Amino acid sequence: MSAASWIAVDWGLSNLRAWVIGADGDILDKRVSGQGVNTLARDAFEAALLDLIGDALPETGRMTILVCGNAGAREGWAEAPYRAVPSAPPGVAQATRALTLDPRLDIRILPGLKQMKPPDVMRGEETQIAGVFAARPNFDGVICLPGTHTKWAQVSAREVVSFRTFMTGEIFALLEKRSVLRHVVGDGWDDAAFAEAVGEGMSRPAPLASNLFSLRAEALLAGLAPDAARARLSGLLIGMELAGARAYWLGQPVLIVGEVGIAQAYRTALAAQGAMVETIDAEAVTLGGLVAARAGMKDAAP
Amino acid sequence: MSAASWIAVDWGLSNLRAWVIGADGDILDKRVSGQGVNTLARDAFEAALLDLIGDALPETGRMTILVCGNAGAREGWAEAPYRAVPSAPPGVAQATRALTLDPRLDIRILPGLKQMKPPDVMRGEETQIAGVFAARPNFDGVICLPGTHTKWAQVSAREVVSFRTFMTGEIFALLEKRSVLRHVVGDGWDDAAFAEAVGEGMSRPAPLASNLFSLRAEALLAGLAPDAARARLSGLLIGMELAGARAYWLGQPVLIVGEVGIAQAYRTALAAQGAMVETIDAEAVTLGGLVAARAGMKDAAP
Repeated sequence: MSAASWIAVDWGLSNLRAWVIGADGDILDKRVSGQGVNTLARDAFEAALLDLIGDALPETGRMTILVCGNAGAREGWAEAPYRAVPSAPPGVAQATRALTLDPRLDIRILPGLKQMKPPDVMRGEETQIAGVFAARPNFDGVICLPGTHTKWAQVSAREVVSFRTFMTGEIFALLEKRSVLRHVVGDGWDDAAFAEAVGEGMSRPAPLASNLFSLRAEALLAGLAPDAARARLSGLLIGMELAGARAYWLGQPVLIVGEVGIAQAYRTALAAQGAMVETIDAEAVTLGGLVAARAGMKDAAP
Repeated sequence: MSAASWIAVDWGLSNLRAWVIGADGDILDKRVSGQGVNTLARDAFEAALLDLIGDALPETGRMTILVCGNAGAREGWAEAPYRAVPSAPPGVAQATRALTLDPRLDIRILPGLKQMKPPDVMRGEETQIAGVFAARPNFDGVICLPGTHTKWAQVSAREVVSFRTFMTGEIFALLEKRSVLRHVVGDGWDDAAFAEAVGEGMSRPAPLASNLFSLRAEALLAGLAPDAARARLSGLLIGMELAGARAYWLGQPVLIVGEVGIAQAYRTALAAQGAMVETIDAEAVTLGGLVAARAGMKDAAP
């Protein structure tokens, strides 16, 4: 096994992920912890990182730790101010350094992107977009990154031109777990119910709040199945989002970057609208984006 | 003070309210407890009621306790099956009796209303509607009952013809207290921000989930004031509801039944659309509805 050369880190709100990279660019190790930004005070980041990758550091000398995600937020480890779009995904030259007690750590935190009108921000997704550019250098179109806060980014010539964030995933989770609908929503899925609800949400978004309550009423009055209720809840929300994001995906090639389940749901919904849609592995483009962001360093490996 | 004749009870999910009524119809006392249906197992209802009104019962003999609200739900004290619309608000003849250990209690629980298409249910609001009919015998039009689950009811000739429930209040509370927006939303209000957001939510409901995230982004990027953020959150959701409920209020006289703050917000939003809108006191119509529902009893006071 070759010696570690640098460490790539994706530090999101819920999780901390690290890849230990060898001198010839091979992945020596991959590690995950639950010490996301949401769980950490500012002075706890260094210890959380050392917990996860301390044993991969050299005995002497410094090692570059290149970080994307919410670690660069104002309430994170060290603020990496947003870059305004249109912009290429930021590289290491735009990164913020964090001070550390351990002299072996050379921390570089990548900025996110901001848009003033309409107001919007992203942190972490810009690095996934850099990974898409690395994997698909000629891709122009729209990148959709579904998740808690789904992003739609218009990209051209390896720049992010504009983007919009939809809180669809967070709203789904709140309704599923904390609203009156928790009594009627199961753990499973129903493809037909999802597809029908996407169509309903797209064509008639305004009655959303009543269509949601109807899930509860139909369960009480007509025994709506819990799996169908969950798929319809998701479909109504994603359908409304597709109607709201229509300017992004209509007539554009769309590349979906996300976890398998949610990426598949978006792909199904978009394909039903005749959109030109592909998916690409989220973890691969995250790491690819960090590798691409580091390529600007003077001592970067080939 | 005259002796208690019967007791009117509004037993909702969060609260238990009771009015002790004298032989000549005067209100002898009013009491409230936090022992709502959500907090009680089935065998705890009697004790909760006795805690609140036990000292108003006669030493011997039975007293009618007429109850509206979720105490009649399947998971309540005793199920009072829904009546299907079109229907007049149910009266005591349709009530369900609950068995009690204390022989002085004569419990009658009023049913709610159901609608099969689109599926919908109400429990408690039908009694408020009965109170509207008592106060305004000739009212035909739409009754809007804003709250956690806002109801819009089309009424004619003292019957509920159809109705729709919007989960707007519950969605607002989840977003305000439990979503990423909790970081940017204050406790106050901003009339101009509310009015503008109602217009935005009505005219363009589909981008709701992105307009919501923009509150977070605008707070980060441009210092959006917390009071304005809260008013816009409310306005976007109520605006979307008004678009979805347009068939109810357009060209119809609208009577709003609700707590002062939320009733005023709906009134402002509807009036800006040129709707013919009035408000009526929620507590008065709740009690008025219970009085009207009891009027069918053989021994009812005049």
